[in-house]
Amino acid sequence: MLPKEKEETFMKLVTYLQNGIEQIGVLTPAEDAVVPVGMLGLDFADMAELAVQMTDAQRDTAAALLPEKAGEGIPLEQVKLLAPIPRPARDIICLGVNFSEHAKESVGVMGQEYGSERKFPIYFAKHVNEAVAPGDSINGHFDIVTDLDYEVEMAFVVRKDIQGARAEDAASYVFGYTIMNDVSARCIQMRHKQWFRGKSLDGFAPMGPCLVTADSFDFPPKLNLTCKVNGELRQKCNTELYIHNIPYVIEELSHAMKIPAGTIISMGTPAGVGMGFVPPKYLKHGDVVECEVEGIGKIINPVE
Amino acid sequence: MLPKEKEETFMKLVTYLQNGIEQIGVLTPAEDAVVPVGMLGLDFADMAELAVQMTDAQRDTAAALLPEKAGEGIPLEQVKLLAPIPRPARDIICLGVNFSEHAKESVGVMGQEYGSERKFPIYFAKHVNEAVAPGDSINGHFDIVTDLDYEVEMAFVVRKDIQGARAEDAASYVFGYTIMNDVSARCIQMRHKQWFRGKSLDGFAPMGPCLVTADSFDFPPKLNLTCKVNGELRQKCNTELYIHNIPYVIEELSHAMKIPAGTIISMGTPAGVGMGFVPPKYLKHGDVVECEVEGIGKIINPVE
Repeated sequence: MLPKEKEETFMKLVTYLQNGIEQIGVLTPAEDAVVPVGMLGLDFADMAELAVQMTDAQRDTAAALLPEKAGEGIPLEQVKLLAPIPRPARDIICLGVNFSEHAKESVGVMGQEYGSERKFPIYFAKHVNEAVAPGDSINGHFDIVTDLDYEVEMAFVVRKDIQGARAEDAASYVFGYTIMNDVSARCIQMRHKQWFRGKSLDGFAPMGPCLVTADSFDFPPKLNLTCKVNGELRQKCNTELYIHNIPYVIEELSHAMKIPAGTIISMGTPAGVGMGFVPPKYLKHGDVVECEVEGIGKIINPVE
Repeated sequence: MLPKEKEETFMKLVTYLQNGIEQIGVLTPAEDAVVPVGMLGLDFADMAELAVQMTDAQRDTAAALLPEKAGEGIPLEQVKLLAPIPRPARDIICLGVNFSEHAKESVGVMGQEYGSERKFPIYFAKHVNEAVAPGDSINGHFDIVTDLDYEVEMAFVVRKDIQGARAEDAASYVFGYTIMNDVSARCIQMRHKQWFRGKSLDGFAPMGPCLVTADSFDFPPKLNLTCKVNGELRQKCNTELYIHNIPYVIEELSHAMKIPAGTIISMGTPAGVGMGFVPPKYLKHGDVVECEVEGIGKIINPVE
């Protein structure tokens, strides 16, 4: 489903480098330039701060100013986009095997227990020292990784502390959405039983290109996600088909555990990952991975 | 093995509340009072900052000053000890099933794959919003938890970023040691396949009573750990018997993944947890859990 007709508050927030200085801004409606947030009446140190501090009124004012300031934007060619939140303060909370078709294809590598009916979500933590910027390389760590895999995911950023939330109130906790490629080293992921290390190698979290404010979509959003490798379509699905959707996750996870403002939660990947093919289609040096989510954009990264 | 004869630099660092203000100090040799770090020539905002910034020279100076300042210490009855690092900035990295006898007892609940030969460590993340102070209650979350369990562990705090370290250099990365009770909700831990949620409920990380500087022990330390529930000895082992020891973990984990300074790594629990008994001996309201590690101290927490 396409974004709602709410262009007046629709904002695609970006973190970018200009002259070596990290700044935050908003993409122009034509998406060919970036307007620094200072020109839109906003004053935040970085995106992590903006995500947990910006009020609805500030957002609406900024969005209303955007069209008239667009002409003063910095052309995209003159900046380098970074991941919207380049250095997540905490581990990213990820869902595993949250699409039925992906559950089926996972059995071969992960065993029957991961393919059977998914009554309870799989939650794991992904340690991210530095998220990979759009265009930057995924480090395959091929000295220790034999089966590097891609996973297109939609992730959301938590706006305020979540504690004992109800599913029907979930929307109020979501600041916005971005794309994450949950790069995975299957051998390492499985041999340690728990997935933490195989998901957390440096360079395993391409994220971006922007952080779209939550009001841009109906809630929960129903967006197509696709992943292509060297132009070949590998993954294609819609976030409508999550086994456990955002409201469910927010209610369950926040029961007995506070989810701090600023946390990034990534909702899981659909079928079509490399390990699902016979024979598997793992990533190799020089491959180019393109992850796209409708209404957010796409992030393209080569494998080095 | 008891601490080396190095009393001159031996320090037990504590975080404490006095008149509602959170401060850091050092236990006196008699362990009946705490000397604020300011009286020992140290100036750090909190323990997390001290752990990654204090130099060896500052440590030695402070340790040398300690005996003469001990008389001016604040009696322990006048302060409330907190966990040494009350709010860990990042998830705690934990080792699972890192003692052979514990692997054997885990089979019943966790399945054969967790009991077999442990060629590769199990690493998982434990989300800790606020570590539980000595004497404070463990929240059993009995509305959703049917099988609450205890796990005495020795944890260490990383002093500087670790990246591609070799095992033989491991000692230089360790700031100090503390005790963590890795409280676990077995049903939740297992039903989500990945352990993150069942290990991360609020109130599941009693930690303390102090953070002992690394130079207090030979490296890697060989210390007895015990856990008693209502006075009954349940766990008793020695850190010498880790399947994968600290040098191994530092080398493996830091290969292809930077471990940031300040990270807490908890090394796993020995046999004798509640789930290992037939029938299981899970924790219930009113139980008192006492975790002790030789040379560090003990942390006692009731279950509420």
